[in-house]
Amino acid sequence: MSVVVVGSVAYDGVETPHGKVERMLGGAATYISLAASYFSKTKLVGIVGDDFDQADEQLLSSRGIEMEGLERVPGKTFFWAGVYSPDMNDRTTLVTDLNVFAGFNPKLPASYRDSPYLILGNIQPALQRSVRAQMNGVRLAGGDTMNYWIRDYRDELLETIREWDFLLINDAEARMLSDEYNLKRAAAKILEMGPRTLVIKRGEYGAILFHGASHFMVPGYLLEEVFDPTGAGDCFAGGFIGYLAEKGFDLKNGHIDARELSRAVIYGSVMGSFCCEKFGVERFRSLNRAEIDERFCEFRAFTEF
Amino acid sequence: MSVVVVGSVAYDGVETPHGKVERMLGGAATYISLAASYFSKTKLVGIVGDDFDQADEQLLSSRGIEMEGLERVPGKTFFWAGVYSPDMNDRTTLVTDLNVFAGFNPKLPASYRDSPYLILGNIQPALQRSVRAQMNGVRLAGGDTMNYWIRDYRDELLETIREWDFLLINDAEARMLSDEYNLKRAAAKILEMGPRTLVIKRGEYGAILFHGASHFMVPGYLLEEVFDPTGAGDCFAGGFIGYLAEKGFDLKNGHIDARELSRAVIYGSVMGSFCCEKFGVERFRSLNRAEIDERFCEFRAFTEF
Repeated sequence: MSVVVVGSVAYDGVETPHGKVERMLGGAATYISLAASYFSKTKLVGIVGDDFDQADEQLLSSRGIEMEGLERVPGKTFFWAGVYSPDMNDRTTLVTDLNVFAGFNPKLPASYRDSPYLILGNIQPALQRSVRAQMNGVRLAGGDTMNYWIRDYRDELLETIREWDFLLINDAEARMLSDEYNLKRAAAKILEMGPRTLVIKRGEYGAILFHGASHFMVPGYLLEEVFDPTGAGDCFAGGFIGYLAEKGFDLKNGHIDARELSRAVIYGSVMGSFCCEKFGVERFRSLNRAEIDERFCEFRAFTEF
Repeated sequence: MSVVVVGSVAYDGVETPHGKVERMLGGAATYISLAASYFSKTKLVGIVGDDFDQADEQLLSSRGIEMEGLERVPGKTFFWAGVYSPDMNDRTTLVTDLNVFAGFNPKLPASYRDSPYLILGNIQPALQRSVRAQMNGVRLAGGDTMNYWIRDYRDELLETIREWDFLLINDAEARMLSDEYNLKRAAAKILEMGPRTLVIKRGEYGAILFHGASHFMVPGYLLEEVFDPTGAGDCFAGGFIGYLAEKGFDLKNGHIDARELSRAVIYGSVMGSFCCEKFGVERFRSLNRAEIDERFCEFRAFTEF
């Protein structure tokens, strides 16, 4: 079943201890869509300028991603640049040029509105809310946010996530949103804000899924070399929603299988780990589903006892 | 089967965001022994001064810990004091008074020497080596170390761990010992130094077991309240060796069951998590084996997919 993905499509300049790329395809919607496309029909919603490269569009199309919702307007595509710390656990933003993204007001093509799955990348909560409202009978909707919206748009954000089925954020965001340092207590507070499912991403330390009174934990995949962590969190989100869509997972109509949610977290982890193996979206040029399923089995092998 | 535990027996002064205790029973050998005692006959080797409290000795005896190897000499028992950061991921040492511990030269009672299992808490590598040499036909020997020995006693340490079957250290120590930031590559280097089994403890993020070409990972137990992390790493070590001794695990004579090593890591994690629930050794006054096995099952429930 199909997934609608909404968020930024961008160019990124990235420097890690392994090298520097001045300008490459990036953006949350790009990464989410690429990861989700291995599991389900994926429909992208975003905005780019007239500098958007045909080769980049082709990469997305080559993965079968539906592009009708990608708006093209005069001007420059969103540009972000950052540099990672030597251990790659921190990064400093050097440039944020919103460009045409500043005027992003997502409108869903008619062919998108009946999709059962919706995932909202990190954009202004009011926009996320407006997208949610354009969908007809969505089966599972949720997304991501960030410290800026949590701090300065709190009410708007709370109103938005109240309607979500799942929220995917990192540990620092979970702490900020709940005002609780302890993640177990943070999760309990956040689950009262609306979403029945919360995934806390912990970077190299893995992820925790909270659903009802129980939780599921997975450690991060041990890579021998992390080339570039940019987009890993979004790839996690894409693998998560992509797998649930592939399974036709339904949180609302009683078809709740907590085990499938856990597996979605594993597929999210798998996609995030592949993302780090090369710069930007490079890994997705060659990655195939067999490799993904093989790594899923690896996760089972190194966590089972 | 029985385990010999060698290391510090101390008094600790600890301050965490949850409170402050001026003086309480502590030390690596204390925590390791307490944790191991739930699984196997445990024989302690340490040194204390004439200020060592009978009530503390009684706590150890009440857990069935053999005390013949606890040397008592005139003077004061080792005293350590520290204060934890608000998130409890860092701590600052305020006082280290070695006292009688400065003259520690462990001699194993005859009744200890045929024990099949030996675990060496963090003490000077030469002393660890001398203890290893006093054992007759030990089946499984290993232990812990710290940054100080890695940096300033490197050759002595390398000579010591070359004879070990397992090494239990934290991630910072693994990085320092191997001079590799990446843990997978760090582990590969360390496994070439002698120990066939390496456990890297990651505090709240769990642990990784490296054995041969494969590895096993477990996330840290999610506690709603961490009262005092002091001793958690040593309790991990005690649960790890205690379980292997209970099972009669034998790394040398072909009875290698990697699954049992993984389970030992889980029992280590279980014991470390209980340790954090109260100040110092307090949790061990009431803890029973049924609670331990229950938490082991919890680990399975929140990691299985």
